[in-house]
Amino acid sequence: MNSETKYPAKALLPEPTLRRLPWYLAYVKLLDAKHIEYISSTQISKKLNVDASQIAKDLSFLNIKGKTRIGYEVRTLVKVLTDFLGFKHRHNAFIVGAGSLGGALMQDVGLAQYGLNIVAGFDVKDAIVGSSIAGIPIYHIDTLAERVREQGVTIAILAVPVENAQEVTDHLVAAGVKAIWNFTPYRIKVPASVVIQNTSIYAHLAVMYNRLDTMHHNK
Amino acid sequence: MNSETKYPAKALLPEPTLRRLPWYLAYVKLLDAKHIEYISSTQISKKLNVDASQIAKDLSFLNIKGKTRIGYEVRTLVKVLTDFLGFKHRHNAFIVGAGSLGGALMQDVGLAQYGLNIVAGFDVKDAIVGSSIAGIPIYHIDTLAERVREQGVTIAILAVPVENAQEVTDHLVAAGVKAIWNFTPYRIKVPASVVIQNTSIYAHLAVMYNRLDTMHHNK
Repeated sequence: MNSETKYPAKALLPEPTLRRLPWYLAYVKLLDAKHIEYISSTQISKKLNVDASQIAKDLSFLNIKGKTRIGYEVRTLVKVLTDFLGFKHRHNAFIVGAGSLGGALMQDVGLAQYGLNIVAGFDVKDAIVGSSIAGIPIYHIDTLAERVREQGVTIAILAVPVENAQEVTDHLVAAGVKAIWNFTPYRIKVPASVVIQNTSIYAHLAVMYNRLDTMHHNK
Repeated sequence: MNSETKYPAKALLPEPTLRRLPWYLAYVKLLDAKHIEYISSTQISKKLNVDASQIAKDLSFLNIKGKTRIGYEVRTLVKVLTDFLGFKHRHNAFIVGAGSLGGALMQDVGLAQYGLNIVAGFDVKDAIVGSSIAGIPIYHIDTLAERVREQGVTIAILAVPVENAQEVTDHLVAAGVKAIWNFTPYRIKVPASVVIQNTSIYAHLAVMYNRLDTMHHNK
């Protein structure tokens, strides 16, 4: 936790805070586009359904403080949030598993706008190895470790079938990858030194189905 | 909470539990493919890094109990979890915003495997309205409300630009949509009777960047 004092703007923030910050950013960008100069935490609170004191607390992690009776400067919020969230930096990443979901992610231009630069895809299927999706080359997975080392890529996006999830993860870790963005529904294990972010969109589907069902039953 | 007694298998489960259930399912499916018949919560715990008592508690929501010294029957777990999570049912959905991310989701065959059947896409761009992606037709967004009513679609996937997120949401709600799967980074507001599931993949990216940064600084 030494970094907290040395690098206040890069402190280890609570995950719920980190997940709310992009909401604030999306909203203040809209305000900026409408040439609105100041916004209070109360106004943000009403719009986004987050407690005003929570918003103030979240923003204080970034050393942003509002002015009494005026609120936060919109342009400053846009700048500081964008910078803090890392969306302005370019993070090179490999995508492992260039099938349906992996291929779809390679085509999403939004990722690049948020600082993620997918430089290559990897797969085992003869039909796609050697081809490219959205201009991104697809290599055989046998060359993965070598290319991770050569290109110094630190982030891997995991979109392989469940049965290969852990094995591919182990290869990635051995090759020196520092962060794995896991799109598989499998709970992969990594050493404590490797960052994991789980985005199982199918798990979100399950939550939605359940909420829909219980709502209907309660009618 | 009346549904808890009346419909035990469709109780309103805590969201963390609902998000863990797909991990268990992914794992027991692998075991089933290897013809393993029984598994204990301790074994699942070791493999998935979830507390064994938590696993037992999560599964008890589904009325699944392990046998002493033998554990859970793998095939039963696969069946009950698949059924409970709604992955075997067919849920019709519209996708609103057939741009980069929306178009990518239309191509993901995984969604259909998990019970989500995207029947149409909607957009405003002349270049794509009237075309189709992965065999799914794309209509003009002006026809959205009418088609929601006609086809009785209850789920909408929101993948429009941030500046249109709330406006499109309001249209969807007015047209009678019961659940919105929000892929935009915008925090949309809906009446309490409408289910919201937020999957802002860019927010997950922000968490990953932050964790990577703090880990490097702590070295």
